[in-house]
Amino acid sequence: LDEAAVADARSRQDRMTKPRGSLGVLEDVSVQLAGLAGACPPPLPEPAAVAVFAGDHGVHAQGVTPWPQEVTAQMVANFLAGGAVVNAFAAQVGAEVCVVDVGVVADLEPTPGLLPRKVRYGTADMTEQPAMTREEAVRAVEVGVETARDLVAAGNRCLVTGDMGIANTTACAALIAAFTGSDPAAVTGRGTGVDDATYAHKIDVVRRALDRHCPDPADPLGVLAAVGGLEHAALAGFLLGAAALRVPVILDGVIAGSAALVAAALEPTAKAAWIAGHRSAEPGHAIALRHLGLRPLVDLELRLGEGTGALLALPLVQSAVRALREVATFDSAGVSEKN
Amino acid sequence: LDEAAVADARSRQDRMTKPRGSLGVLEDVSVQLAGLAGACPPPLPEPAAVAVFAGDHGVHAQGVTPWPQEVTAQMVANFLAGGAVVNAFAAQVGAEVCVVDVGVVADLEPTPGLLPRKVRYGTADMTEQPAMTREEAVRAVEVGVETARDLVAAGNRCLVTGDMGIANTTACAALIAAFTGSDPAAVTGRGTGVDDATYAHKIDVVRRALDRHCPDPADPLGVLAAVGGLEHAALAGFLLGAAALRVPVILDGVIAGSAALVAAALEPTAKAAWIAGHRSAEPGHAIALRHLGLRPLVDLELRLGEGTGALLALPLVQSAVRALREVATFDSAGVSEKN
Repeated sequence: LDEAAVADARSRQDRMTKPRGSLGVLEDVSVQLAGLAGACPPPLPEPAAVAVFAGDHGVHAQGVTPWPQEVTAQMVANFLAGGAVVNAFAAQVGAEVCVVDVGVVADLEPTPGLLPRKVRYGTADMTEQPAMTREEAVRAVEVGVETARDLVAAGNRCLVTGDMGIANTTACAALIAAFTGSDPAAVTGRGTGVDDATYAHKIDVVRRALDRHCPDPADPLGVLAAVGGLEHAALAGFLLGAAALRVPVILDGVIAGSAALVAAALEPTAKAAWIAGHRSAEPGHAIALRHLGLRPLVDLELRLGEGTGALLALPLVQSAVRALREVATFDSAGVSEKN
Repeated sequence: LDEAAVADARSRQDRMTKPRGSLGVLEDVSVQLAGLAGACPPPLPEPAAVAVFAGDHGVHAQGVTPWPQEVTAQMVANFLAGGAVVNAFAAQVGAEVCVVDVGVVADLEPTPGLLPRKVRYGTADMTEQPAMTREEAVRAVEVGVETARDLVAAGNRCLVTGDMGIANTTACAALIAAFTGSDPAAVTGRGTGVDDATYAHKIDVVRRALDRHCPDPADPLGVLAAVGGLEHAALAGFLLGAAALRVPVILDGVIAGSAALVAAALEPTAKAAWIAGHRSAEPGHAIALRHLGLRPLVDLELRLGEGTGALLALPLVQSAVRALREVATFDSAGVSEKN
């Protein structure tokens, strides 16, 4: 963060026609974005685009979810037809939706709005072998970096993370356990809503994968290759790419949170560009956010993914910056200050 | 709430292409608005307008705040010039700002966007006499009812509460104590940010006012007249007026919360139209919300008033309804359901 812009933004917040500190967390957001842009006020974070990275998971074979694997491809078709919640939320806040096939098992028809970037046909079952090779992990990270670059080149001034992949919360749990040292039982959640038996089994699957690979958090790409997902890898790249371009990126739920652990391990300064859009109902998400030092803006028990929670936070971030840009100061408005 | 529309909305939420319950609190919001409209899906809650009710307070003379009383009128001018945070937030979410002078001490110049509805020149000092007469309280409530009616007649499909009035959190504390039976120390906050000595004094002022009037919560207009504010009265009417028209209204912070206690005491069914936009940093607000059974959508330590917290919640409410209106079902989208 640019220190002069940070100081300018703090000073301006204190001179704006409102009690000091009365915008709470949104004052911090506006200061962060000034520091990121190296300018006070920073540009309005619009237009915005949400990139929904889609991939499948070999660990699905272990029965960690009651949803069939083909739902990943079916939901991608639903996104492209405009019928999913991410489309409704994006329409409400004026964001573009871009879908990236980074590893869906099915071959997908070319469709406007779909970026074909398949690195492989789903990951391997991490309880039996590494989810992917190190080279594949790097390629998937690069897909994310390039997606961020292309969306910014197209004029977007705020990026939003999205994801789709049946069984992807199992990979999240393994990643979060590996990077935070938490027990699998603490970071594994019910995802789309599994029953007690499946939940206990899911925790066991995560534990077995970690026992097999003993992922080393000092080697983030190794962790990603062993127990990650292709969309997690792409999201890590997306978070790094946005930060390198000094463009803010709003993180959705536990998938983005676990990808952010990878990205922060690769480049800790990238965090300066990240805003936690919401806190999902998945227990691992809160643990990941605490580890990252990020405070979520929305907390409404969402557990859908797709980018939905982050899209809800977009107007909050935009409002924070707009206030810094447009609100009069006590001097300029002729308003008396307190005695 | 219309029971058939509520059941339709719940059923549709369960058939939409997402895991059941995965939109968390926003599913409840969409169901509430369907029940309010008596139709599933309900209309999109837009366009929206925020009504900022402004009034002054005789209790200011007791030294409950370091801000001069003339700041109320100066901030009204700032709202009308577009220079306040409420203007920036309203612009971001596409809401109209309407300012209502229901009791500012100063005479205000006629200005586009200002509704002249002064009931009296500020309230009296409630530590010495009732803040207003019962007739004045009724007239101020009517100002709110008529403001809601006129904004809906102008085409608005969602109303948002706003307020301005130096010293108005003192009246809030007295109202909340009267209706919830809480101790003044529990419901009095630091408002715009007073020091320890002023804070202790403010609690004492609230206690003295309550001791003098012994307001009876079974007589809501009597409570309002004894220890309320003109903007609190108008907001109570605004909340009742919106409910009577079956139009949703998003409540801002502690001023709206204390006014809602008055309105709920007058007509408990009106609550069906209310959505708590946010939870402010004022301690009395959480107590009022609990008493009303309302869950706030945004919780970011704001304590500004003006309608700012409620405006942040507006796109969340709109997104909740838009999802119910636009998202495909498993059948229509050809997406497999879980096994």
